[in-house]
Amino acid sequence: MTTPILAIHGGAGTITRSAMSADAEVAYQQALNDILAAGQRILVDGGSALDAVTEAVRLLEECPLFNAGKGAVLTSAGTYELDASIMDGTTLAAGAVTCVKRLRNPILAARAVMERSEHVLFTSDGAEAFAQAQGLECVEPDYYYTEARYAQWQRARQQGGMAAFLDHDAASLMAKEAAPIDPDNKFGTVGAVACDAQGRLAAATSTGGVTNKKVGRVGDTPIVGAGCFANNVAAVSCTGTGEMFIRAVAAYDVAAQMEYAGKSLADAADEVVMRKLVAMEGRGGMIAVDAQGNVALPFNTEGMYRGFARGAEAPVVSIYR
Amino acid sequence: MTTPILAIHGGAGTITRSAMSADAEVAYQQALNDILAAGQRILVDGGSALDAVTEAVRLLEECPLFNAGKGAVLTSAGTYELDASIMDGTTLAAGAVTCVKRLRNPILAARAVMERSEHVLFTSDGAEAFAQAQGLECVEPDYYYTEARYAQWQRARQQGGMAAFLDHDAASLMAKEAAPIDPDNKFGTVGAVACDAQGRLAAATSTGGVTNKKVGRVGDTPIVGAGCFANNVAAVSCTGTGEMFIRAVAAYDVAAQMEYAGKSLADAADEVVMRKLVAMEGRGGMIAVDAQGNVALPFNTEGMYRGFARGAEAPVVSIYR
Repeated sequence: MTTPILAIHGGAGTITRSAMSADAEVAYQQALNDILAAGQRILVDGGSALDAVTEAVRLLEECPLFNAGKGAVLTSAGTYELDASIMDGTTLAAGAVTCVKRLRNPILAARAVMERSEHVLFTSDGAEAFAQAQGLECVEPDYYYTEARYAQWQRARQQGGMAAFLDHDAASLMAKEAAPIDPDNKFGTVGAVACDAQGRLAAATSTGGVTNKKVGRVGDTPIVGAGCFANNVAAVSCTGTGEMFIRAVAAYDVAAQMEYAGKSLADAADEVVMRKLVAMEGRGGMIAVDAQGNVALPFNTEGMYRGFARGAEAPVVSIYR
Repeated sequence: MTTPILAIHGGAGTITRSAMSADAEVAYQQALNDILAAGQRILVDGGSALDAVTEAVRLLEECPLFNAGKGAVLTSAGTYELDASIMDGTTLAAGAVTCVKRLRNPILAARAVMERSEHVLFTSDGAEAFAQAQGLECVEPDYYYTEARYAQWQRARQQGGMAAFLDHDAASLMAKEAAPIDPDNKFGTVGAVACDAQGRLAAATSTGGVTNKKVGRVGDTPIVGAGCFANNVAAVSCTGTGEMFIRAVAAYDVAAQMEYAGKSLADAADEVVMRKLVAMEGRGGMIAVDAQGNVALPFNTEGMYRGFARGAEAPVVSIYR
């Protein structure tokens, strides 16, 4: 029996102690802690890694602080387009949805695609039709709305052009005040990875995408191998400038370096996040666990909302470097 | 200077000598030969691998014999949804479109995404709006129509349920007669990989998808790392049961095994196609070249439309095992 472990992230970006109010810090820490505790209970009770990551990401989608499900960012058209993916490391089964606009929990749709279709990836109306036929909850687009994301979108629009906002400037989200513009910080994603007591691995990722993104733009979140991957070696979930993570095949590259080059989880994850992605100006981070219960949470930004819970120990939550 | 090489494929499947009429065989061989010759001219004249694979795939899209562009298969709704991707191995730049319904040449849209947007992947209406703004040619859906694909779709519908047809049963396509049903043979894709005289690598892939596929289903073709990948080690384009190629991260896994485990191109490609994919009941093949000008064209089906042209030598074209 392995001591089970669960890790989660709520996005990476320009998250600094000086920019974060005390209230915001407490709110994020509490949310991460509660969600880790809920996923941890599943693992401690003998549940599967797959169920733990599904529930953790569902709760991250339900929490308006994070850019996935409720609290998602708006596109350039003022709409919402959500992506999610999940992968079972024991079977290499995977499911993903992209550009869905009416599903309360995209991660549940991704899991339904994995378990109840012969496909891996469904997009747009087809994905919604499939999810509805499977009995998943649909919502009006207003469901995703939060005052903070709307204000953020309005500021991005005033700036013009592409997304240019701090999805994760917690101070601006909490205070609803104008925040400094940083064109390199416009991403936000949530995810979870787990190794259960039987040594089974799973990964799940979900996002609202990029503030003010062009309609139809898809990042790394629903791409197996890029934003999400699990096999019998490692489980990985990414957050960052999605285009670079796609080009780097970031999530699978961790498992490949471990299997083919004999690297440790920490070294393989660092190689991707701190060297390969940095070389192509990719910013963000990832969470990763391996079948021995090791965990790595590297990021090349100022901060990443993150945490892990091992066995029945109290969750460990961090925000800054 | 490297001797440049170009390889192309027009899909894999149940393609046997006994099922193929003499006329059909000649038509496929001629098409593959002509398209190889056109791409080869670009390389021999000092053009880039990127330009050679773009032109080869554009011509494969223009040819009604293959399931991409004109000649694409129909969805369960009787519509067309096309996917394409391209990757430049020198820069790791990549572009892809998915579920486009009105673009004459999806591969040109993928290249425009790569070169003229800050994104990698665009889907559906957003992809078309972007391509139109870039001046790419739009067509009415009837443009993709061929009598053979329509007859194939009608037979698939009569069978009911999911796609269950031989996209590559050349006899049925040419003769327009009912063909034997084989639920494991429903895929078709075109692609090209090249190494130019400067040792630069590139890969491109395009498809109409799966006959009678559910609307919104996306296979491996537009997924960087799965159906298409190029870096400074290898360039790979895949064709087959797309879901398995996504789960195996098939295209990138070839380059990863070469870089991290020191495998040869042929051994790495064989490991993916003949072992990993077979283990998960994935059927199909891939074309791959490396920076030393080696080429590998493995497939685990009865046949694959394929060929390569090295330097100024006459193209070599094959169909069967």
